[in-house]
Amino acid sequence: MTDLIKRLDRAFNPKTVAVVGDKRAMGYMWLNCMSTFGGKVYSVQVDPDEIPGIEAMGVPNYKSVLEIPGEIDYVLCAVPRPVAPRIIADCVRKKVGAVALFTSGFAETETEEGIATQEQITQLAREGDLLLIGPNCMGVYNRRRGVRHSPDQPAGDAGSVGFISQSGTHCINFSLVGAVQGVKCSKTVSFGNAVILDAPDYLDYLAEDAETEVIAMYIEGVKDGRRFLGSLRRAARRKPVVVWKGGLTRAGARAVYSHTASLATAPAVWDAAMRQAGAVQTDSLDETIDAVKALVYARPTTGARMGLIAMTGGQSVVITDSFEREGLEVPLLTAASYEKLSGFFNIIGGSYRNPLDAGGTIGMGFLPGNLQKLFDILEEDGNVDAVAMEVGASFIARRLRQNPALLDSMVDILAAHRERSAKPFIAICHPGHVEDVMADIRSRLVERGIAVFGGFEAGARALRRAIGYWRFRAGLD
Amino acid sequence: MTDLIKRLDRAFNPKTVAVVGDKRAMGYMWLNCMSTFGGKVYSVQVDPDEIPGIEAMGVPNYKSVLEIPGEIDYVLCAVPRPVAPRIIADCVRKKVGAVALFTSGFAETETEEGIATQEQITQLAREGDLLLIGPNCMGVYNRRRGVRHSPDQPAGDAGSVGFISQSGTHCINFSLVGAVQGVKCSKTVSFGNAVILDAPDYLDYLAEDAETEVIAMYIEGVKDGRRFLGSLRRAARRKPVVVWKGGLTRAGARAVYSHTASLATAPAVWDAAMRQAGAVQTDSLDETIDAVKALVYARPTTGARMGLIAMTGGQSVVITDSFEREGLEVPLLTAASYEKLSGFFNIIGGSYRNPLDAGGTIGMGFLPGNLQKLFDILEEDGNVDAVAMEVGASFIARRLRQNPALLDSMVDILAAHRERSAKPFIAICHPGHVEDVMADIRSRLVERGIAVFGGFEAGARALRRAIGYWRFRAGLD
Repeated sequence: MTDLIKRLDRAFNPKTVAVVGDKRAMGYMWLNCMSTFGGKVYSVQVDPDEIPGIEAMGVPNYKSVLEIPGEIDYVLCAVPRPVAPRIIADCVRKKVGAVALFTSGFAETETEEGIATQEQITQLAREGDLLLIGPNCMGVYNRRRGVRHSPDQPAGDAGSVGFISQSGTHCINFSLVGAVQGVKCSKTVSFGNAVILDAPDYLDYLAEDAETEVIAMYIEGVKDGRRFLGSLRRAARRKPVVVWKGGLTRAGARAVYSHTASLATAPAVWDAAMRQAGAVQTDSLDETIDAVKALVYARPTTGARMGLIAMTGGQSVVITDSFEREGLEVPLLTAASYEKLSGFFNIIGGSYRNPLDAGGTIGMGFLPGNLQKLFDILEEDGNVDAVAMEVGASFIARRLRQNPALLDSMVDILAAHRERSAKPFIAICHPGHVEDVMADIRSRLVERGIAVFGGFEAGARALRRAIGYWRFRAGLD
Repeated sequence: MTDLIKRLDRAFNPKTVAVVGDKRAMGYMWLNCMSTFGGKVYSVQVDPDEIPGIEAMGVPNYKSVLEIPGEIDYVLCAVPRPVAPRIIADCVRKKVGAVALFTSGFAETETEEGIATQEQITQLAREGDLLLIGPNCMGVYNRRRGVRHSPDQPAGDAGSVGFISQSGTHCINFSLVGAVQGVKCSKTVSFGNAVILDAPDYLDYLAEDAETEVIAMYIEGVKDGRRFLGSLRRAARRKPVVVWKGGLTRAGARAVYSHTASLATAPAVWDAAMRQAGAVQTDSLDETIDAVKALVYARPTTGARMGLIAMTGGQSVVITDSFEREGLEVPLLTAASYEKLSGFFNIIGGSYRNPLDAGGTIGMGFLPGNLQKLFDILEEDGNVDAVAMEVGASFIARRLRQNPALLDSMVDILAAHRERSAKPFIAICHPGHVEDVMADIRSRLVERGIAVFGGFEAGARALRRAIGYWRFRAGLD
């Protein structure tokens, strides 16, 4: 473990936190974020109108970082821009573990003052050997320790997915939307303009972090391409790294400059570099979360031959098109499978050549014995590498929820299959017209460790990306 | 109006309906579907165990179609396969307006008996000049008249979107999922194996139907390509036609054969034919609904230069990438616009080059005056053809719902802009981690006639497709 990684480990796992500049007008957002933090929290605020409100929250307030007793592992600084240099200087003198600078209005504004102030704080941090996260960022989130950058984020238990983001919004959304879908974050960081600490530092850290099994990132620009790709390559050899690049289009490049003053990369160059490094590429928040789900919850496979189960003929066609369009195969099954299927499969309004149009056979989930038989047949079938199933077609979802015993039995069979099977299994739950019911069914499956996707294409794309990573790891592509 | 279209008009707008073969084990699904029908409903059921249950619903039951007094405009037949030929023969003798045969197990099973029975009913219908819809289908849905094929479908008011589908699931899902998102169906038909009436017949009918403004369809196979393309071309010259083709992949082609015994078309041939006919092509239910929303609710435009508004820097980048990736442009604004924007736009944590990173300027929707200014500037800007806006970022959605007055004012401004603007306007509401809150905000916007999409890519793709259609209509592509 390098010295820098040790220092980052202190910042990501703080025992003491100071929030500088929180106030009523922000709804005490930052102090609320720390309400789940098990360690000691201090506030720094000089405005006499603000101090009583902060103290009423039970947080001791000081006029300066320097006045806080003892060591400070992590400082979140939300002061107005002109005050930022003074706080940075204080943090240097206090030798704090790290500072995340929420304050924005620097180089990304393309104004003289913004650029000059950014240079000033960069120099202060560099000369003072200060770990500076940002500016123009949301800092770190450690789910286990309850250090958060959104009061909505879950806290207290462990997670396994790290996220590194040049955008605060995407960083927060990844953890919040991911949480709904079963993605538990270990540690995330929003790092904005990256004047001192940059993506490679966080990558190196999360690559070594034992509780982080999958790394995802949102990146707008790379300052030192060689260094970034080196870190990425090393990380991807140890664990999956999903990279979502913003600003790959022409106008998108203009937008990233306005956002984090990042310079764009040519799309073809970026794509080639990512492939070589073994990164999994995505284009949106949803795709990133989906790819992570497939990597975390579906067993690794290097084969791409799908066994598909849908509940009606129309959905059987569409699930098949979706997986083939993503480059996965939907092969014929073995003769042995067809012999077994012919013994019990209901072909009136159904078929079993693969896809399995199985609504009439498993009674929309109400005949768990037959569903189990289908799983067993696909498990033994040598032509099938992975299984995807449409779960809870919207027109039966209500009936499933009205009859909790049936839903329980379906969830149990899916969870047991997922547990026992050597092949990846994913479920597709389209929200349909009963979004609340389907959200309920989804969360039941998610709790049992099943990768659930909101549509066929989304599931196919995510699984294709996961398979691509496992093939890279196996030296196959 | 041809004779066939007049006859189809009778079937789609029946005054009398007979349901043949409904039963308790199906939850009286078909009679429940007709509970919203304003005309006269009859049942035909011979099983003495089933008749009391049907009569208890207040539906008069007969032993045969022939015994029903008066004319029957539409028959829904759900009998077991071996009984189907007898019912078809009775319907011929009764001279009913049309029969939809829900019964399945015909050619799509690839069994001798299935194929023979399909031939038998086809011959009976052809010789008897009977309008046969299906078999292996769900028949028609007329929202206004309350003739339904799912008890969940809305009824009583008028709609403007027709749907023609070879799959019952997709037909029902289109109406149900569409209804949640503001798509109101006029008339839809699920037509399964299409032994007598086929896609071109329904297309011809909906092309002439005055209340149908947009037609969408899910199609698995075309029997007479020349006739289909002729109907499609004629329809697309009058109103937008969105075509979702199932089975364009290799295994998908196998699946459509198992589903509706349809033969596949080579993807490149299909694509060329669709372009030539001026059809809007889609690949999934969600894409089809999205394209329809853009065609129904966003003003027609042949220009593709976007003005984009997002609430944070990260989202500004991603909305821009999404629209450019779909082939739309995100141009710089005019000098006049920049001058106006520089007067009030907050560039600390924001920017206005286009995209407009406007969270700090419109206060996440809480400063309606500034939002109005942005709309006015984009309206006047000669570089902008259409406007897309991120609405209700998930982290402020709860606050918006907690403060109904703020939400009201935001909805009012958006609705007024949409009403007044000569340019298409679309809203993007990602469900985020507060799916119920966002569903609520979405339905508020949908009620006001705004096209709302669940993600940036989805919105961009839908608008690109709509623009493509309007360019076709203008003779530009």
